[in-house]
This record gives sequence, structure tokens and C-alpha cells, in this order.
Amino acid sequence: MPATPRLLIGIDVGGTKALAGLVNDDLEVLATSRRPTSGVDGGHLIDLLVEEVDELRAQAPGEIVAVGLGIPGLLDRQGRVWKAPNLPLEPGTAIGQELASRIGLLVASDNDANCAAIAEHAAGAGVGHEDLVLLTVGTGVGGGVIVHDEPLRGAHGMAAELGHLTIHADGRPCIGDCPNLGCLEAEASGTALGRIAGEVADEHPGGALAGERQGGTLDGPRVTELAQAGDTEAIEALRRLGVNLGVGMASLGNIFDPGLILVGGGASAAGELLLGPARETFMARVMPPIAERTEVRLARFGNEAGLLGAAVLARRAADGTAGRAAVARP
Amino acid sequence: MPATPRLLIGIDVGGTKALAGLVNDDLEVLATSRRPTSGVDGGHLIDLLVEEVDELRAQAPGEIVAVGLGIPGLLDRQGRVWKAPNLPLEPGTAIGQELASRIGLLVASDNDANCAAIAEHAAGAGVGHEDLVLLTVGTGVGGGVIVHDEPLRGAHGMAAELGHLTIHADGRPCIGDCPNLGCLEAEASGTALGRIAGEVADEHPGGALAGERQGGTLDGPRVTELAQAGDTEAIEALRRLGVNLGVGMASLGNIFDPGLILVGGGASAAGELLLGPARETFMARVMPPIAERTEVRLARFGNEAGLLGAAVLARRAADGTAGRAAVARP
Repeated sequence: MPATPRLLIGIDVGGTKALAGLVNDDLEVLATSRRPTSGVDGGHLIDLLVEEVDELRAQAPGEIVAVGLGIPGLLDRQGRVWKAPNLPLEPGTAIGQELASRIGLLVASDNDANCAAIAEHAAGAGVGHEDLVLLTVGTGVGGGVIVHDEPLRGAHGMAAELGHLTIHADGRPCIGDCPNLGCLEAEASGTALGRIAGEVADEHPGGALAGERQGGTLDGPRVTELAQAGDTEAIEALRRLGVNLGVGMASLGNIFDPGLILVGGGASAAGELLLGPARETFMARVMPPIAERTEVRLARFGNEAGLLGAAVLARRAADGTAGRAAVARP
Repeated sequence: MPATPRLLIGIDVGGTKALAGLVNDDLEVLATSRRPTSGVDGGHLIDLLVEEVDELRAQAPGEIVAVGLGIPGLLDRQGRVWKAPNLPLEPGTAIGQELASRIGLLVASDNDANCAAIAEHAAGAGVGHEDLVLLTVGTGVGGGVIVHDEPLRGAHGMAAELGHLTIHADGRPCIGDCPNLGCLEAEASGTALGRIAGEVADEHPGGALAGERQGGTLDGPRVTELAQAGDTEAIEALRRLGVNLGVGMASLGNIFDPGLILVGGGASAAGELLLGPARETFMARVMPPIAERTEVRLARFGNEAGLLGAAVLARRAADGTAGRAAVARP
């Protein structure tokens, strides 16, 4: 038995902050470090990550054996980042390799939504499932898929863009640089919740949502708050959002037969007010033999999902079991 | 070197016929055997398969090392058939195991659309691709997906029901026992082509399609024939079908990042009249980095896709490389 426990660092490299965690082999977070990332340039981003590793290393009651990075973007199988709209990285930057060289440790890298799915599968709401689908409903809709105990990565590492599954071919234009219409991201995101709440407000001009809108605060989180306080119109807006989400879930159920569909992200704070209508729609639409064999429930991890999944990847890199994940050596 | 070549048998167990092929290690079909299956009961179905194996074995210029079965239904990981509307099998029938016991050979079983995808991946239009999506557009829409060189099977063996991907949440009721609305099967199948052609005919009451409809023959294959003969209304009907197919392809592109999407099945006889609009719609809707990295083209194999894929599975069973496929020993 080693004299000191084996430790890992997972870092969720977001567009506003990089949240790093010192994690033990049981995936308990022992310490965290965070640095703002907005406005930072590419070279300085690496410096920040090195600082975080050094800060956590100074507190570590054991040996750190590897680091994992969750990146909000499209990575290829070598860990090069090809598209990360919220990070200051040149296309093709091998951020994991650069960090490994600086800190002298193994560094595993993956997409942040894949990391969240890995965390749920390894230690969260998906323990015991070989297959699962995770939908994260926040400002947009993200996703990760586990197929036979491995994250779905696709031919170029760009798979599981579940927010860009169409539910209405003639629906609303998607957000950002997605050219599609009627995607989940346009119809079932926190952003869509604000818009749907506006439609409900139009139907009830004297109601609470209409009053809120005059104050200019009709965004997804506020609608969720009102619904949790019992406002029937806000509950109706969440119900419509849940129906849209359930339509997408039915497609994903028929495609993956996943056994488990998890919902995380900010909008999951609405709990059954969102999940109930989503589950009901899913069950009514998916093929019956799949309906009978699929659970729909909330994800376990919130803000720490990304860093925990990155730590799991780091552990696998240290064990030589990282499969097709991108692992860089110092 | 063996004195006689190693041989395989693949059987596509369809609802109207069981088509068996004697196949060599290079996947050339040396002989075939077929028996009608409609109206046959479950016990007799096994008898027919045994007869086919015996018939091919009598002609075999070498040793038959294994048999593969492609089944039009939902199989679990043990090869038990849980849902096969067109076959006379009790739920839970281990058809591969029964056949293995009767013929004294290894028998591998999989879903027929998985077999078609396996054939395209191993020896058809998908050679060299680790990932691909196959859509088969016939009376309905079927599909198979290869993820990292393995068929996508799901938690219970029921994955890749790609025909039940929604493209219009408020669309037409699906066919058969799918409770969904606006599935690919309802909007982009050969059956849908007949309906869409009727809509085009309504817009052109004096045209060729309207004339055909009076004769009662406005089905998908006839519309395809007219389009191939240059009829502009039939071409328009195929274009609308292709757009619907392309909407579904864009979702599948964003979900799988497959690098390759193949279209097979009867409707693929329309070639670019169907594939052109589908590809154009796909490219316009899928995330641009995926559009740049994905090809859309015709599958290679027609009616023999299922038996060839079953033969590939048989070869893998003989080699001990069948992975998660269901393999029964005599």
C-alpha cells in the first residue's frame, strides 16, 4: 500500500473561468482553484492552468499522478482544439500537450460535455449503466453520450452535439454559428424558456409573467424561480419547454436505446416541473419496447461535473485505460 | 495453408423469404438458397434455416466454419428475439442457439439493419471508415450505425432505430406500432414518397402524376420510375423526400460526427434525384466543421447486404472477434 494516497487534478476550462479540483481516487474534491479566463490570450491561458496545478500541488497530501482537461469545444483524437468559440485558442492548439510539457505530468483532454457524461457514468446518476445519454440544458443545450462504457466521440472527435438535433424542421433559427432550424438548442434551452415565457405572457396580458416582462427580467432562471414559487403561467412555460425536450429525447431513445437519459445544466433546477412533461412526452413517443426499458432522471453533478469527469479521465490516463481519449505525456 | 478454403454462411431472415448465401473469406457469394417464410410457424422457420444450411453445405468446396443470421427485429445481447413483427417467433426465442444446436456450427445473430451496416463497413461503401451511418429507405426507413468499428447496439440491443428520428414534432403519425409523429419513416420513406407525389399531383391536376394516380399506381417505386424517365413532377416529389431525409441526416451528423452517411434500400434506386437534395439539405443544416468532414453517398450492397453482413459476423465469430455480437455454440 502506498504511503501517500494517489491524487488527480481535473480542470473545467470554461469561457469565463477555469475551475480546477484536487480529487482523490474516490472522486472526492479535496480542494479547488479558480481563475477568470475571459479576456485572457492563448499563451496566458496555459499560464493560468499551470498556476492552478501548482496551487493544488502545494496543498496535495499525496502524489498527483495525472491531470484532466474538459474543453468547451471540438477536439480531435490527438487533443488538438479545432473550435472553441469561448476560448482564445488558435485552431489546432494542442493545449493538453502544452500543459503536460509545462507541469511534467500526464494530461488527458476531452470535450467538457463528454467530461460531464463521464462523471455521471463513473460516479454520478449513471453508475452501473454501460450506456447513457446526458442532456445539459442551460443557456444552450449540450450533451454527452456513453456507448458501451466509452464516450461517443465520432470520426473527428465532434460527436454528441445533441443540442443540434432538429425537432421542428421549419422551426426557429438556432443560436450562434449553427445554421440549422428547430434544434433543441433553439426550442428547448434556457434561452428558449425566456421566449416561450414571452408567448405565455402574451396569452395572459394581466398575469405575473407579463408583469415581469415589463421589468425586463424574463429570462430562463427567473421563469424557473417563478414556477418554483407556484406561478401557473411560469409552470406552463416550463411544461412547453419540457415537451420540446421530450420530443428530442424520444429521437435519442430510438437512436441509442440508452437505458438512461439524464438531464443536467442550469434548467434542471426546475426539477420535475421540467422533467415531468419531458418524461411524459418521451414515454408517449419513443418505441414502446424502449420506453419500457428507459429511465429519465436528473443528473447528479452540477457545476463540478466537468472537473470530476476530467479527473476520471486523468485517472484512466494514469492507469493506461483511457481508451480513445487524447493523452499527452510530458 | 488449409487444403480447402474456409467458408461462411450468411442468412437474411426476412418476413417474406430467408435468403442464405455461401460466402468465401473474401466475401464473394458462391451460392444462394432461398425459402419463403410468410405463413410459416416458428418451429418450421428453424427447419427452413436448417434446410438452407444443408443445401449450401452440400455444395461447399471447403469447410463451413460458422453461420450468421440477420433478423428483422429487436435482439438482446444473448441473441434472443424480443420483437420481430414479421417473423413467427415467440418473444425471447433464442433462434441462433436453436440453429446452432441443430447444425453443429457456431451461429452469430444480429439485427438485419446492423448486418447491412456491418457489410458496408467491412466490404462495401464504408471500407476504411471507423464510423458510419447507414439509412435504408424502402417501404419504411431503417438504419445501422458503426461507432469505432463496432455496430451500435444500445443497452438492450435495440439501438439505431433511425427511422424513428423525429423531423417534424407536429408531423404525420408514424407507420405501424411506432407512436411518434413526424418520424423519418413517416416523412422520408418510400411510403411517404407516394403520399408526397399525391400532394404534387394535387398541385398539377393535369400532369403525369395526377394521371398515374387515377390508375391507382402512385407508389414510391412508380414515382421513382417516372422521375428517372424525366417527369418533372415526379422529380419534384423525390426532391421533397430528399429534403426530409437531409433534415434527419443533419441531426445524425451532429449526433455521430460519422464522417460518412450511406443511403441504401429500394428508394436509393433514384440515385442523385434523391441523394442530391438530401446532401444539399444536410450540408446546409449540419454544424459547419462536421459538414466539411462528412460524405453522403449511396450504399454499395442491395438485396445481399443483410446476408453479407451476417457472413461477416459469422467470420468474426469463427475468429473469436465478434465483440458484443450474440454468438451461440452448438
